[in-house]
Amino acid sequence: MKFSNFFIPTLKDVSSDVKMKSHELMIKSGMIRQETSGIYSWLPLGYRVLKKIINKIEKIHDEGGVNQILMPTIQSSDIWKISDRYETYGKEMLRITDRNKKELLYGPTNEEMITAIGRQYIKSYKTLPRKFYHIQSKFRDEIRPRFGVMRAREFLMKDAYSFDIDEKNAEITYHDFYKLYLKIFEELNIPVIPVRAPSGEIGGNLSHEFHLIVESGESEIFIGEDVLKKKFNELSYKEVLDLKSFTDDYYKQTNFTEKLKSYKSIEIAHIFLFGTKYSSSFKFDVDSDKGKFKPFMGSYGIGVSRIPAAFIEYSNDKNGIIWPHSIAPFSIQLINLLTDDNQCLDFCDKLYIELIRNGFDVIYDDRTERPGIKFSDADLIGTPIQIIIGNSLKKNNEISIIKRKEKVEQKININEINNYLSNMLRKVI
Amino acid sequence: MKFSNFFIPTLKDVSSDVKMKSHELMIKSGMIRQETSGIYSWLPLGYRVLKKIINKIEKIHDEGGVNQILMPTIQSSDIWKISDRYETYGKEMLRITDRNKKELLYGPTNEEMITAIGRQYIKSYKTLPRKFYHIQSKFRDEIRPRFGVMRAREFLMKDAYSFDIDEKNAEITYHDFYKLYLKIFEELNIPVIPVRAPSGEIGGNLSHEFHLIVESGESEIFIGEDVLKKKFNELSYKEVLDLKSFTDDYYKQTNFTEKLKSYKSIEIAHIFLFGTKYSSSFKFDVDSDKGKFKPFMGSYGIGVSRIPAAFIEYSNDKNGIIWPHSIAPFSIQLINLLTDDNQCLDFCDKLYIELIRNGFDVIYDDRTERPGIKFSDADLIGTPIQIIIGNSLKKNNEISIIKRKEKVEQKININEINNYLSNMLRKVI
Repeated sequence: MKFSNFFIPTLKDVSSDVKMKSHELMIKSGMIRQETSGIYSWLPLGYRVLKKIINKIEKIHDEGGVNQILMPTIQSSDIWKISDRYETYGKEMLRITDRNKKELLYGPTNEEMITAIGRQYIKSYKTLPRKFYHIQSKFRDEIRPRFGVMRAREFLMKDAYSFDIDEKNAEITYHDFYKLYLKIFEELNIPVIPVRAPSGEIGGNLSHEFHLIVESGESEIFIGEDVLKKKFNELSYKEVLDLKSFTDDYYKQTNFTEKLKSYKSIEIAHIFLFGTKYSSSFKFDVDSDKGKFKPFMGSYGIGVSRIPAAFIEYSNDKNGIIWPHSIAPFSIQLINLLTDDNQCLDFCDKLYIELIRNGFDVIYDDRTERPGIKFSDADLIGTPIQIIIGNSLKKNNEISIIKRKEKVEQKININEINNYLSNMLRKVI
Repeated sequence: MKFSNFFIPTLKDVSSDVKMKSHELMIKSGMIRQETSGIYSWLPLGYRVLKKIINKIEKIHDEGGVNQILMPTIQSSDIWKISDRYETYGKEMLRITDRNKKELLYGPTNEEMITAIGRQYIKSYKTLPRKFYHIQSKFRDEIRPRFGVMRAREFLMKDAYSFDIDEKNAEITYHDFYKLYLKIFEELNIPVIPVRAPSGEIGGNLSHEFHLIVESGESEIFIGEDVLKKKFNELSYKEVLDLKSFTDDYYKQTNFTEKLKSYKSIEIAHIFLFGTKYSSSFKFDVDSDKGKFKPFMGSYGIGVSRIPAAFIEYSNDKNGIIWPHSIAPFSIQLINLLTDDNQCLDFCDKLYIELIRNGFDVIYDDRTERPGIKFSDADLIGTPIQIIIGNSLKKNNEISIIKRKEKVEQKININEINNYLSNMLRKVI
């Protein structure tokens, strides 16, 4: 992608309302734009990050045999009256009246709707388990939306739902999702910690959240000494339950005698096993050879549009964002410092094509801007590798390669480029 | 994908409210489910079709240098008051009041928001042209939602927007989108006809719609004798304007002396060149060496979630849907008629893996249902190729291949399968 054809409206300053580093960097790097309080557009650079996260979530869910669907954003109040949450959900629910005076709402979550879907079609125990997911906008009318997309009113969520024949099978499904989530975050290079949580308004008796430890986080988690050394995805169901790793609420509720270490953190995913709470209120009966039963359900959410902000909060420096290859909008930023020099122009154009041919995600800064602006933009948007072409090419047949994270510059003779690239390729793709 | 792991809740009967063939077939084949009036969920089979359409639209837009973004569904009334459409849009606009009594709305389209975005960031003529697209839910509160996803209230739309320095450049961009749309529909195997249209509530003076000719269509288009023979994507801008191919409205407004032939049709896309209508009301000024100017804009929409319905309306028979490979949820339906026979089971399992390894999208009917149900489900959901394994395998080492469209059965000896598949592969992928 050529910078000149790709809209990255970087900004020098942001409004004084912007209090959180990730919010500031997302606005400055032209990733997002606030449209109104708590409601954001994702601009091209931000959308690329979001898309990489979505693609990974889809891939791992598909591999896990979870069926992708798409439920609508607007729901009828009818189904929320069945579960009794229409009244109890409170003011965060965006209530809407249509032209025929029918009560609608913008879905804050989809337990009710998926239960209505299951109830219509799932008739026999033979077709269970069933697992569904969708990636859809949600709306929660926060009283004080803040921190950009971290606590937005309209946000993108991946929510999955499961139906099982009994509690034991539902626990297996829950554990499968626990591992599936760890796999997603591992492949995204986001080091989350699973923590036990109370199940709150969704109901039920088993729940975990996935947190990213960050100084500036709004949440607090409590962790036993050896927890951070564990390989979470290798834990058995029993070990998952025994893990000394808790949300603030859970830790305080349960009066642990042992004192655990606390960390500030950001919640980015949440799973629930709530059993028959919704299948009961929906009178959702399934036939089996032992008579009718209510299926056991769980729900599993990932705060998709919160992840870029959470990760930036975790990984930045004074110059900007530091992306890993897994979610970087681009892997390589090719910077031509001498756009009016034919030799440099020609070299860059060829290298750009060569990099693309090798499968790299490249942004090619072909603008006629000053070097200072190109460097600061590259650091700000956080591309993992910068390749710089300028005077060294003309003098010594050399180009510079800077790794964004380490900020270490390496000069390479142009004869070594192919070698260097194929080494890099092995690491990056 | 194994049928047993993939949720396809086919139904025998539909409600008597269902009047249109595509609506009936989408409900019967388990593609969609109505959640409330004019609001649908896309179930796994339907979502696969939608996803293939989305992927193609994204690919062609990306290749065309159009930057993908994601604007929110919920908008502030403020920007709609600037364009004066907050009052004029009428009752189809879903108006919402949030907990702080702020007036919001569910976006029926995004001209206002993209103009606000452009106005903030686009300061110099040097950065023009700019082209953006997003694929996002829209809501139009139709008084009488009907025909399933064909005329839903919540629907998925791809909308693109362009900014140019003057009318001449805007016309070039408009013509580029005209060709880009034809390319999308060509690759999707949907034979659309571009027709000139009045520009209506969006404003401006140039507009085309893309229609699919279908007996049951709600629209009517008027076409000159030689139009259907044209290669639309090869037309110059002047030829585009001269083409005798019009919407009903346009034809009647312009009092043609020549009588054109009329066809019933379904509109699936619409492009507008509206010039400075929104940049003027937003006081959106851009600098140039000749002073300030208002950018020339266009917008370009595709009714993404309407396409599956429109195509089904165009391509079905008494047994169900007839998909082309381009948008079929699966390309091959592998049907095992003898699931309790080890030889057949073993053969099918191996063939299934072989087909996947060759890159085919396969649905493997591994259910223990009667042959009649498997055949009628396969015809209903419309998979282009059915591969049937049963008694012929045991007796003569033969399998059957049925092409859904032609309904022609071909017997093939199992030694010829590899050959047959590699031939098919060349045609399908």
